[in-house]
Amino acid sequence: MTRRLDAQMTFLTEACKLKSVNRATTLCDGSRRENSGEHSWHIALYAMTLAEHAPGNVDISRVIQMLLIHDLVEIDAGDAPVFGSHDATAIEAEERAAAQRIFGLLPEGQGTVFLDLWTEFEANQSPDAQFAKSLDRFQPPNQNLASGGGSWVEYKVDYPTIEARVGNKIANGAPALWDWIAPRIQAWFGR
Amino acid sequence: MTRRLDAQMTFLTEACKLKSVNRATTLCDGSRRENSGEHSWHIALYAMTLAEHAPGNVDISRVIQMLLIHDLVEIDAGDAPVFGSHDATAIEAEERAAAQRIFGLLPEGQGTVFLDLWTEFEANQSPDAQFAKSLDRFQPPNQNLASGGGSWVEYKVDYPTIEARVGNKIANGAPALWDWIAPRIQAWFGR
Repeated sequence: MTRRLDAQMTFLTEACKLKSVNRATTLCDGSRRENSGEHSWHIALYAMTLAEHAPGNVDISRVIQMLLIHDLVEIDAGDAPVFGSHDATAIEAEERAAAQRIFGLLPEGQGTVFLDLWTEFEANQSPDAQFAKSLDRFQPPNQNLASGGGSWVEYKVDYPTIEARVGNKIANGAPALWDWIAPRIQAWFGR
Repeated sequence: MTRRLDAQMTFLTEACKLKSVNRATTLCDGSRRENSGEHSWHIALYAMTLAEHAPGNVDISRVIQMLLIHDLVEIDAGDAPVFGSHDATAIEAEERAAAQRIFGLLPEGQGTVFLDLWTEFEANQSPDAQFAKSLDRFQPPNQNLASGGGSWVEYKVDYPTIEARVGNKIANGAPALWDWIAPRIQAWFGR
């Protein structure tokens, strides 16, 4: 038991580094960039708060656990801003290697459980993963609306780009949330 | 449904402010103070990772939800460092008022559920609350060990003070975790 705990504590101390990975999105007050640790907290709180807008077959406790670990790979791979241009295949390989290293710090059986949960999130096929992925895409536009544009201004994006890169993923797992925010984003661009 | 969602989004945007509340503890690398948003993420991850060290009657999903909301009152009341000197009654009143305001942003029934969960955490009587409270006290000494002393140095505390203010609460909800860290803290002070 002590050796399992040693491994778990190594993992949890390594996880601390996620607080130093910065994202493109700023805080709601625009004062600084958001980091991936606090972002992970915020969207887990989104899941807890918005559970009633998930399809009926979604297990919100699994969604929350997925969201708590979904960004840990960024400790090695960094954050790839959604409006940036990337080599998707290269990022995927880098994130997969990161997942194996980081979840590999855990005791053997537990590392596999965490890795499987992360893989399920990335695949975006199960209802839990689709709702989790929707929340991950739904939070940044809310922060941009609150801060006066945020990463939309920095990356010079327009509404059709947001609809294509973000809207489809939100609508896929949480149609009610996309219906709610789409007109607000349109109004912002038409201001 | 839309009016419920309006209220939930007001709450979630208000919650963003927790990322700007700084704590006494630094990050594991000592580079800056930790904020209460990323701290809440980290201890929710602690709960997920250390679930096997909880007493058998603990519902880890409820613990995680408690930890996601436990610090929101700090948006109004600020963080009261565990080694600082405070008027406990005044803080309690301030935090209670904050809880009523912040959870009061939610739709009526949901606000009550969140407020009850926060009240249960604060009371530290149920097995779920006791385990959650243990994790909230267990994470900072781990960060201090990693960063080379952190808030122990700043507040000039000694081992008996830590045992009294932190150790008892950790041992209360998670004896295995106190057994694990107590000799490490003693070794640090005896270095």
